[in-house]
Amino acid sequence: MSKAFVQVTLKRSILDPQGSAVEKALRQMDYPVEAVRVGKYMEVTLRDGLDRAEREAALEEICRRVLSNPVIEEYTFSWEE
Amino acid sequence: MSKAFVQVTLKRSILDPQGSAVEKALRQMDYPVEAVRVGKYMEVTLRDGLDRAEREAALEEICRRVLSNPVIEEYTFSWEE
Repeated sequence: MSKAFVQVTLKRSILDPQGSAVEKALRQMDYPVEAVRVGKYMEVTLRDGLDRAEREAALEEICRRVLSNPVIEEYTFSWEE
Repeated sequence: MSKAFVQVTLKRSILDPQGSAVEKALRQMDYPVEAVRVGKYMEVTLRDGLDRAEREAALEEICRRVLSNPVIEEYTFSWEE
């Protein structure tokens, strides 16, 4: 089994009201915060028996088609060692 | 400015219905998925002028008190290089 860590974030140009709200709350609590952006995090475990290329291709497609909205979001992933 | 990447996930023992729903959807679409867990991801940028220990302490407290619910969640963070 191979496990991947996926991060989905709003593109830089897209306003992030959730992040702004967290940022404002943290500042009101006197934390030394400059900016906060909020995104999604997913751990995806793939079936055994896939080679490296198949795994990459499957996850790439899952991220693009299901886990993110490419119009406003971007994603990155890494594999568990 | 120092930027941190924070991941907040449900503890292993806590059911993750959102992850299960994503997992089921991906399987129905014939993706070779074994398991999915869904969490939160945040990018937190701290103010300038903090030393390493202060940054660590501030972020640790922010994660524990604000960004996660320690009863059911755990968090990890790393700093931007």
